[in-house]
Amino acid sequence: MADGKVNEKGITPQSENFSRWYIDAIRKADLMDYTPVRGCIVFKPDGFELWERIQSVMDGRFKETGHRNAYFPMLIPESFFQKEKEHVEGFNPELPWVTEAGSEKLEEKLALRPTSETMVGRMYSQWIQSYRDLPVLINQWANVFRWEKRTLPFLRTSEFLWQEGHTAHATEEEAREETMQMLQIYKEVVEQELAIPVWMGQKTPSERFAGAVDTYSIEAMMKDGKAVQAGTSHYLGENFARGFDIQFLDRDNQQKYVHTTSWGTSTRLIGSMIMVHGDDRGLVNPPRMAPTQLVMIPVGPGKLREKVMEKFDPLFDQLKEAGIRVRADLRDESPGWKFNEWELRGVPLRLEIGPRDVDNNQVILARRDTGEKVTVELDRVVEQVEELLVKIQEEMFQRALDFREKNSYLEIETIGDLNAHVAQMEKESKAVGWVLAGWCGEESCESKVKEETKLTSRNIPFEAPVVKKRCIACGSESKFTTWFARAY
Amino acid sequence: MADGKVNEKGITPQSENFSRWYIDAIRKADLMDYTPVRGCIVFKPDGFELWERIQSVMDGRFKETGHRNAYFPMLIPESFFQKEKEHVEGFNPELPWVTEAGSEKLEEKLALRPTSETMVGRMYSQWIQSYRDLPVLINQWANVFRWEKRTLPFLRTSEFLWQEGHTAHATEEEAREETMQMLQIYKEVVEQELAIPVWMGQKTPSERFAGAVDTYSIEAMMKDGKAVQAGTSHYLGENFARGFDIQFLDRDNQQKYVHTTSWGTSTRLIGSMIMVHGDDRGLVNPPRMAPTQLVMIPVGPGKLREKVMEKFDPLFDQLKEAGIRVRADLRDESPGWKFNEWELRGVPLRLEIGPRDVDNNQVILARRDTGEKVTVELDRVVEQVEELLVKIQEEMFQRALDFREKNSYLEIETIGDLNAHVAQMEKESKAVGWVLAGWCGEESCESKVKEETKLTSRNIPFEAPVVKKRCIACGSESKFTTWFARAY
Repeated sequence: MADGKVNEKGITPQSENFSRWYIDAIRKADLMDYTPVRGCIVFKPDGFELWERIQSVMDGRFKETGHRNAYFPMLIPESFFQKEKEHVEGFNPELPWVTEAGSEKLEEKLALRPTSETMVGRMYSQWIQSYRDLPVLINQWANVFRWEKRTLPFLRTSEFLWQEGHTAHATEEEAREETMQMLQIYKEVVEQELAIPVWMGQKTPSERFAGAVDTYSIEAMMKDGKAVQAGTSHYLGENFARGFDIQFLDRDNQQKYVHTTSWGTSTRLIGSMIMVHGDDRGLVNPPRMAPTQLVMIPVGPGKLREKVMEKFDPLFDQLKEAGIRVRADLRDESPGWKFNEWELRGVPLRLEIGPRDVDNNQVILARRDTGEKVTVELDRVVEQVEELLVKIQEEMFQRALDFREKNSYLEIETIGDLNAHVAQMEKESKAVGWVLAGWCGEESCESKVKEETKLTSRNIPFEAPVVKKRCIACGSESKFTTWFARAY
Repeated sequence: MADGKVNEKGITPQSENFSRWYIDAIRKADLMDYTPVRGCIVFKPDGFELWERIQSVMDGRFKETGHRNAYFPMLIPESFFQKEKEHVEGFNPELPWVTEAGSEKLEEKLALRPTSETMVGRMYSQWIQSYRDLPVLINQWANVFRWEKRTLPFLRTSEFLWQEGHTAHATEEEAREETMQMLQIYKEVVEQELAIPVWMGQKTPSERFAGAVDTYSIEAMMKDGKAVQAGTSHYLGENFARGFDIQFLDRDNQQKYVHTTSWGTSTRLIGSMIMVHGDDRGLVNPPRMAPTQLVMIPVGPGKLREKVMEKFDPLFDQLKEAGIRVRADLRDESPGWKFNEWELRGVPLRLEIGPRDVDNNQVILARRDTGEKVTVELDRVVEQVEELLVKIQEEMFQRALDFREKNSYLEIETIGDLNAHVAQMEKESKAVGWVLAGWCGEESCESKVKEETKLTSRNIPFEAPVVKKRCIACGSESKFTTWFARAY
């Protein structure tokens, strides 16, 4: 990458090359490292800590809604995949296989799970006999494998971490309610905690989960205008119940198949958070997700440090006691070096205090997101930090929302206009963004858009900002108003 | 198992057949299920919840002592294992191998990690350059694989869950301190939280971790007198540093190899907790680890239920508010059926309240561990429950300690006496227990004990209750006073 421009922080500017910016930013923030195993990364402590916070928030929401965690085997016998036809076709090309153990060949080869519907289905068929056993509401935190050709840290890796919920219900209605409830929880967590606005909607059949009746997603726009599918929730109907014979005796004394759902979010969310909020100075973590919310740095000459620390130490304790995730950087480096490092890592607030501040009974608070600095009286620091963290969280969400609106195109009606739009944006090195388009429901029209523009259908939003009348590809009546975008 | 005696709970008594008792108890408590994949189990929600509590306590202690979590790839290239000679010999027989992905054969086969020293070593060699990069203090929560011939739920399964700490230090002294610190933390968590007394000590070379300089363990006695290695901590010296070339530039400007440690505890702890405390009525969970500490069950005729619930509901809220993990069982089943179910699951305390109790302004509290019942005034329930939970925890530990002492034999001096002891115990269908024996340090003597009695060395305790003068096998001078026992 010797040819690329990088700034004084060693980061390629976003405007120069967004993909390089992303890799530079996560390397500089020390979130991950590549490994000698194809497509597999190490989640280093600062990267993993982001995942721990996502886990903690999600897990709390799952438990509040009556779900419990379990753990299923990672290895799945080949024959299990055969039980659901679409499922095997969808996942077979990317499955790694265990074929031997110690010095012996296995009789049946075992896949590293790409997802666990089959194993869960097999077990549920043993556990569910009667309507009294329903609903079954289980979640699993696990590693999963999809042997990808092209990988990108956090967003697409051969091994990744995720949660997968698997539920079984007596009726379609109840299973559909569950599917929507979990999608709603995903939306709330991603919007409220990660400060990423998302569109909830339904996937088109070509983008549906292999084996699902209906797939729903939340979709987020990155700063390069591309889309990330940030979470999915599937109504699986009786597909897996029939494949694995999950039947129950209902109140009416009839044997019936259960209706199942599954839903998942993954370490992709880490990548999304970075691509939505990061800037040319590195990461910008939303306060609610930031492992460190405030870093305290003493400034001024070393010989006056003692005087500063007399105020610094009790302030640190006060902030900690107030529940703020605070960190003191007392290393033997210059303030400038420290400012730079914590900016790269995306810490939302920096507190500076020097001898003159002590004399004036004040500190400086600097925002990571806007660069603004404010002077705050010493005895109002805790209160001000609390307020600022809330404010930053809100403003980061609003900024992401504004960006999304600015890069969403609602008035493109034909494929000709779409091609012109794409050509124009590419010529100006601008984001192609998202295009809201009418779609007649024919796969051939979806394919046509993809072939000509590389835009794929993201989802059919539940609440489209405009309702489209004509299919963008064929001009016939539109059945579905759909988001199209380039996607990770 | 149609020939075995089972009690009215469907559990084989411990005295009849301890292994069957164990399987019966964990099945009745709904902790796990077998799967079609050899040696792999499902951790069902009630079993996984025990693991979540262990995780939460351990993780807190790791973080307090400056460790951070990370995640390394699960797949390890075959060539990595070759880098440390003893390591490859130790683990090769039990490694499952991924040899293909999708439809292509891999160029180099990949093992499912049995432990991560090799992958971690490879990465540390990239991350560590200078003394400023040290120490590296990382822990990982992960699934690991050891393709075992004979498996037992929780205690020995082909896939299991664990944590593995991996640290790198500038000096041997510091690495040895870390090794001991983590062993001490394991001891404290297992004794204080799981109420299991353990012996800390050093493993003999034949029982050492493959690739370690020194292995230390905590060892626990189960109710059948057998031993479980409940946690291990290894000082790895420069072995992995040399294998993976982990060198740093020290303050004195010399290139040096780092000194590494690793330490682990696993889902074995779930099995140990059950085998130390369980009885013929099922599980007995120590209060600090119990997912549910108190179950509330209304009793008396249904027509008076409303009157009972007027007291029941606010009491539930009070208990919850006081931080007690309380559960109300309001299902439409008889009290006796519920009592039985919560006994099987090992809930430490049961609260009963009926119409007459309401008249008398009281409730009944029943202990799971001793069966004792006490009558408590309504307005003193929270306080009494808190006290009882502390008391039960202490008494469970003391009972396990008494059991261990009763089944520890300190006065067996020769292999002849040991053989006689084993024969006697087996004749009387009693636990062989643990034998403290002198050992000269020769592997042949250790082997002789194993061959003749099936007792293996557990560890050389740091503080042996008696110091032995003569080797139990050859009669020459004893160098190490060692615990011998049959082990899981």
